Amino acid sequence: MKAVIPFKKAHAKSRLSPVLSQEEREELVELMLNQVIDSVKEAGIETIDILSPSMYGLENLRGFRVYLDKRDLNGVLNSYLEQAEEAVLIVMADLPLLSPNHIKEITSTKEDICIVPGKGGGTNILFIRNPSRYRVMYYGSSFLTHCSIAAESGQNIEVYDSFLASTDIDEPEDLVELLIHGKGAAKDYISRKFRLEISRGRVGLSLI
Amino acid sequence: MKAVIPFKKAHAKSRLSPVLSQEEREELVELMLNQVIDSVKEAGIETIDILSPSMYGLENLRGFRVYLDKRDLNGVLNSYLEQAEEAVLIVMADLPLLSPNHIKEITSTKEDICIVPGKGGGTNILFIRNPSRYRVMYYGSSFLTHCSIAAESGQNIEVYDSFLASTDIDEPEDLVELLIHGKGAAKDYISRKFRLEISRGRVGLSLI
Repeated sequence: MKAVIPFKKAHAKSRLSPVLSQEEREELVELMLNQVIDSVKEAGIETIDILSPSMYGLENLRGFRVYLDKRDLNGVLNSYLEQAEEAVLIVMADLPLLSPNHIKEITSTKEDICIVPGKGGGTNILFIRNPSRYRVMYYGSSFLTHCSIAAESGQNIEVYDSFLASTDIDEPEDLVELLIHGKGAAKDYISRKFRLEISRGRVGLSLI
Repeated sequence: MKAVIPFKKAHAKSRLSPVLSQEEREELVELMLNQVIDSVKEAGIETIDILSPSMYGLENLRGFRVYLDKRDLNGVLNSYLEQAEEAVLIVMADLPLLSPNHIKEITSTKEDICIVPGKGGGTNILFIRNPSRYRVMYYGSSFLTHCSIAAESGQNIEVYDSFLASTDIDEPEDLVELLIHGKGAAKDYISRKFRLEISRGRVGLSLI
């Protein structure tokens, strides 16, 4: 089994632009990538490949194969899957609440596919036992799409139910979850900029 | 062990008012309550108490004790805990993605307290082994508060990690999760009014 993490630093996370500058967003995605890599490594997965449109943000990373490819996420990942000769775990780079134990549980699924939904219909993690029999379609309601692709090709799917693994960091409200439930460098970075703002509804952010 | 579900139908869920009328919101909360009750019952918990400021929405419910109390949630629940002589499971009524299996896992915790966080810092479910030793403080960042109360009184706490159990229905975006991951009457009700609106970011709602 090998893991693959798509990553893009330049102009990353535009939906966080109401609260973070471009430089801050780029710093945050790099910190999150490192945490995700650590979780995957600690779960015992030895081969970790990074897919990226450029080396920006990856200059100092050692011990990984970087596939430089400027096509869109689906094109790049589907080429990668076609060529893979072992099970593949696709992990998004914006999951700072992910732990090694999540990875171990996901990859020990008994089904052909294990999927971790993201907030709002996305797909955070996909474990694909037979990559040549599967293709991905990220964006939009990709969770439902990925379930359909499995069903149409006669592959069983497990939906992995975890609040922490389902929390991808895209919107300002997600930073609240990082402050409340997170640890490590990404949380520390955000907690130097924001504190929780308590009201009667959901907790918000306020500048420090 | 017994379960207690706080419930209020009148003018419920004001944060859903951009997309649902008062009548629709009141209908939805009643459907969600019934689904939560079913999940708790199917998990094998025989005593289920409902706390409510009035009988509105509970007229046709049979087989439950209803505690009518107009005080705020914390006042009512802390009185309830003081008088309880067995373990108590506090379950919010707005968790239509909750399953009997979640309840079974939560109540089989080995710790003194098991907590299920809600989105944005809330508390969706609390299992309290020794109710006379615990008090609740809902609203605001209640997840962190409930963890602190446990720590300060020397009680161990388990954080139960489930995307489905952590999804409370308060904001329009939560209805998206209900449409994608839900089943049963509450999902059917919402899917008669809205369909998913696919864009490149998170999935939204559009009127049918």
